[in-house]
Amino acid sequence: MKNTQEKLSQFRNYMAGAGFDAFVIPSNDPHFGEYVQDYYKCREWLSGFSGSAGTLVVTLFQAALWTDSRYFLQAARELDGSGIELMKMKESGTPTIPEWLLSVLQPGSIVGADESLIPVSEYNGLVDSISPLVLTLTGDPFSVVWTDRPPIFSSLARTVNYNVSGEASASKLNRACETLGLDGDFYYLLSSCDDISWLCNLRGADVPYNPLLYSYLLFGRGKAELFVSGNSADSTVQETLSWEGISIREYSQINSYLKNLDPAVPVVMPYGKTSMRMFNSLKINRGAANIMDDTTPGGVAGSLKAVKNPIEIDGFRKAMVNDGVAWVRFIMELEKRLANTSARPYEHELSELLIKKRSENPDYLGESFAPIVAFGPNGAQPHYSPSSANPCMLGLRGFLLIDTGAHYPYGTTDTTRTFFLGEPNREECLDYTAVLKGMISLSMVLFPPGTRGASLDILARGEVYKRGKRYMHGTGHGVGHNLCVHEGPQSIRMEENPVTFRLGMVTSNEPAIYQEGEYGIRIENLLCCGLSDNVAGFYCFETLTLIPVDTKAVDVAFLGEECTKWLNGYHRRVYETLAPQLNHEEKVWLSEKTSEIGG
Amino acid sequence: MKNTQEKLSQFRNYMAGAGFDAFVIPSNDPHFGEYVQDYYKCREWLSGFSGSAGTLVVTLFQAALWTDSRYFLQAARELDGSGIELMKMKESGTPTIPEWLLSVLQPGSIVGADESLIPVSEYNGLVDSISPLVLTLTGDPFSVVWTDRPPIFSSLARTVNYNVSGEASASKLNRACETLGLDGDFYYLLSSCDDISWLCNLRGADVPYNPLLYSYLLFGRGKAELFVSGNSADSTVQETLSWEGISIREYSQINSYLKNLDPAVPVVMPYGKTSMRMFNSLKINRGAANIMDDTTPGGVAGSLKAVKNPIEIDGFRKAMVNDGVAWVRFIMELEKRLANTSARPYEHELSELLIKKRSENPDYLGESFAPIVAFGPNGAQPHYSPSSANPCMLGLRGFLLIDTGAHYPYGTTDTTRTFFLGEPNREECLDYTAVLKGMISLSMVLFPPGTRGASLDILARGEVYKRGKRYMHGTGHGVGHNLCVHEGPQSIRMEENPVTFRLGMVTSNEPAIYQEGEYGIRIENLLCCGLSDNVAGFYCFETLTLIPVDTKAVDVAFLGEECTKWLNGYHRRVYETLAPQLNHEEKVWLSEKTSEIGG
Repeated sequence: MKNTQEKLSQFRNYMAGAGFDAFVIPSNDPHFGEYVQDYYKCREWLSGFSGSAGTLVVTLFQAALWTDSRYFLQAARELDGSGIELMKMKESGTPTIPEWLLSVLQPGSIVGADESLIPVSEYNGLVDSISPLVLTLTGDPFSVVWTDRPPIFSSLARTVNYNVSGEASASKLNRACETLGLDGDFYYLLSSCDDISWLCNLRGADVPYNPLLYSYLLFGRGKAELFVSGNSADSTVQETLSWEGISIREYSQINSYLKNLDPAVPVVMPYGKTSMRMFNSLKINRGAANIMDDTTPGGVAGSLKAVKNPIEIDGFRKAMVNDGVAWVRFIMELEKRLANTSARPYEHELSELLIKKRSENPDYLGESFAPIVAFGPNGAQPHYSPSSANPCMLGLRGFLLIDTGAHYPYGTTDTTRTFFLGEPNREECLDYTAVLKGMISLSMVLFPPGTRGASLDILARGEVYKRGKRYMHGTGHGVGHNLCVHEGPQSIRMEENPVTFRLGMVTSNEPAIYQEGEYGIRIENLLCCGLSDNVAGFYCFETLTLIPVDTKAVDVAFLGEECTKWLNGYHRRVYETLAPQLNHEEKVWLSEKTSEIGG
Repeated sequence: MKNTQEKLSQFRNYMAGAGFDAFVIPSNDPHFGEYVQDYYKCREWLSGFSGSAGTLVVTLFQAALWTDSRYFLQAARELDGSGIELMKMKESGTPTIPEWLLSVLQPGSIVGADESLIPVSEYNGLVDSISPLVLTLTGDPFSVVWTDRPPIFSSLARTVNYNVSGEASASKLNRACETLGLDGDFYYLLSSCDDISWLCNLRGADVPYNPLLYSYLLFGRGKAELFVSGNSADSTVQETLSWEGISIREYSQINSYLKNLDPAVPVVMPYGKTSMRMFNSLKINRGAANIMDDTTPGGVAGSLKAVKNPIEIDGFRKAMVNDGVAWVRFIMELEKRLANTSARPYEHELSELLIKKRSENPDYLGESFAPIVAFGPNGAQPHYSPSSANPCMLGLRGFLLIDTGAHYPYGTTDTTRTFFLGEPNREECLDYTAVLKGMISLSMVLFPPGTRGASLDILARGEVYKRGKRYMHGTGHGVGHNLCVHEGPQSIRMEENPVTFRLGMVTSNEPAIYQEGEYGIRIENLLCCGLSDNVAGFYCFETLTLIPVDTKAVDVAFLGEECTKWLNGYHRRVYETLAPQLNHEEKVWLSEKTSEIGG
């Protein structure tokens, strides 16, 4: 296997031959999702840096990699000796990529990038920001340079039945067309696999954790063409799609198809999730005329997908019961193992244990993201991942943070619970209670239609502020219905997001406190936006997650009457809903764990 | 006196002669502030509609007036028989002004407007939105048409001493220049009288309630020219300004001065608060080159002005003591009058009574806005104003809402208190308590630097939501230091506003419940953003206002422990701060009014 310096040298040979003075290599694939296949891990292959986020820029004489604070340590280690400079994003003094390019290149130098990996929305800004350098888009250089590149693989697609999706594809496509509100004939071009999966009621396994198929979709009123690998769609899938009016075309044919599309018919697409390659293919016959951005936040399909229908919501509820049962059994066994003070479990063993408990349910499809099991100081890293390669044994005293989620055919879960091992001190109790109070305060809110997540964020975050602490991530993200566990367009964050809550949106609620070098506390439930029973015309959140919240570190006085009452009510509901699925011993255990506090 | 139809006919003669097919007449003056002199009430003179907000559009054959829901009833009454159609803004089916113009005029028709009244920021949008109609700016048509027009009057300016302003003009001007961050020579052009008053440490009385002078200011590094009426600046003012490096020029000369300004020197100005007339004057010699928008929210001067210095904050505190004493005496007398169940006071008598109590302090300069004293259903109109012409007597039972503020040389106040006359029922208590709880929840918040008001709004509004109710206005506005009681750029509203809180910003906190046809409840304090004593690096709000909150309608259980504790602490501080200024009887009364609840 070549080392990084050899690979860089080889890449620079390509650059010199093709006339590039610099080349920008991002981490995404042409579908702009959270996960990519190994085939697209060009940045990782060339730089040696294996984190999920980062952009490599190579010139003929230098190279630098931009990544965020999550990866500073890992990147420093992995880039050591490569000659690639680590650029710590958002640190003062770190240049942006354009600033750096302008500082190391002569005016007029050619900066290359793969046209499949640059979204249309960023192209003009990039051109302007590096001027007087010249941006030149090209094909994929790694098809030549990366000789032992893994192939793209295609998983087998499965269709989602109406009794799970609650809506036929044809109806979804029709609604998408109507929502666009365009007169006359048009095409809508989608590259985002989760939107396509939702619209077509299809699932696959082309990337980790997200049950997606690499695909493109071109649709309009009464027409839909799905571009997917021929290996993915068996005859059942083909028949179902055909029934919904969706024709199948070969994945690799999308660009030649776009080049030949009738230039008189306008094409709409979300510029933020469509590559310049698509845009350029369309432009061949029509110039930039008749190509339009879908400026709906999240795109029209993403916007419709975010609003779960009653059948999807019932599926979520069912998934939560499965997951609640698995967690109950998991925590029971965890407690037994922890009772043994001499043979302590490792973090990664616990993530395997929870998967084992989930697997006892035949509907379990897999994890919805890489499990986080973090003891003590590890919990202070919001994106920590335990590994058997680097095992960490649980100590006798400290917080244990567990954040995992599962896919079921009818719903996706994402839950964080934090437990205290040993006896917590006053500060630990107050921090834990502040996080819990924030989580509950957001759960209890009532709000009218038209409310944005940015308005609600302080309800959770403000309780953490009262402890003089902060968490540097959002309070909530949307969750897909057996789709991506991180889904838009709504969010609950400090940052402005114009999307307002709509009935049926499923969103996480996960305030936290991270005490560097000491512990992390995060408590997370999923919420579904619903109509209030008590207050006409107002929205509320139904807490979907059904897993007991550890009460050992709760300071009841600090939690306050209102939140304590909520917690007791929640625990009562957890018990009542899960008990029918549990054996006697489990029921007794859960009854104890969900007993009233502060009485 | 002419009636509206005669005036319109005369105005149409002018239009026909000048070649206009339509004319747009807004409500503002060339300084874009909240209040205008009678001279600028052209829209009112021509239409007969006397509300503060509204735009009249006249064509040769039609006329229509756009106003908001506050004024629908009044406008309908005042426009009756005039032939002017009332356009209810934000009601479905109401066309916008451009939509209406396009529907009634032929393409190519000429739409006129006074170039002094159109801000630069709106010009291009207006041109685009009425195309293919043609916008033509002109001088003031009312200088010809309005024969008995009142003259512009000029009040005498007074200077604000350093021991009140806490910063010399020269220093403020210098900071404004530095904040702009421009290299080389430049001019900054200001038309907003409150920014000019603050920068020049000047006050006047050219408009109601806001202690301002009609003025323009042109400044740069080491230079400042104040354009103000020669009658305004006596020799003391002239000397003080000269000492600060500010030359005085005649108010009416601003445009000829701008026309002759060196075109090589760039001119910066906030386009949202500068008229097209200024812009066009500048353009004569330079084209559009070297004219730049100040895109700082609120403009650079407004942004600096919003952050009160320690001397200004101390002034606010002193103003609050004055106002607290006046309110104590006012409420005591109010209670005595109300004890008489046969001779009830009128609303307007109570606003006069509060002014009388304030006037006992020799520093009192006047009200900071038109007092609101609203009994029962009147309180449900957020902008109600009592009047002796239309007197309303207080009933025996119901909420009495009083919202007034005062100017003192060293600070401005704005307070709302709501009292219950008679015995409140359960719903009234819960509504009152929800408003109070919202006000207190916002008062108690801790937050880090970088927090926007839009993030905090739900803390107040959310308590009102829990009652299933809403208030359709912001929770808080900035307050000037003996300047405008409504000041930007910060706010606490649902709507996104990118301005973050900075230490020293003074902002109101005024959640409310309006029950149409029944009552209004609003409780308002002013807050000053300060550093938390308890939580390092976090900001908090100091409540500046020192006036007891009526506790008759408080439901202590619903208010909750935390808010009750805050209220008791606040009342203790109100008593301790005001008591030294009170006589024995007043102290006894206040001690009773501020006694602990929920013990």
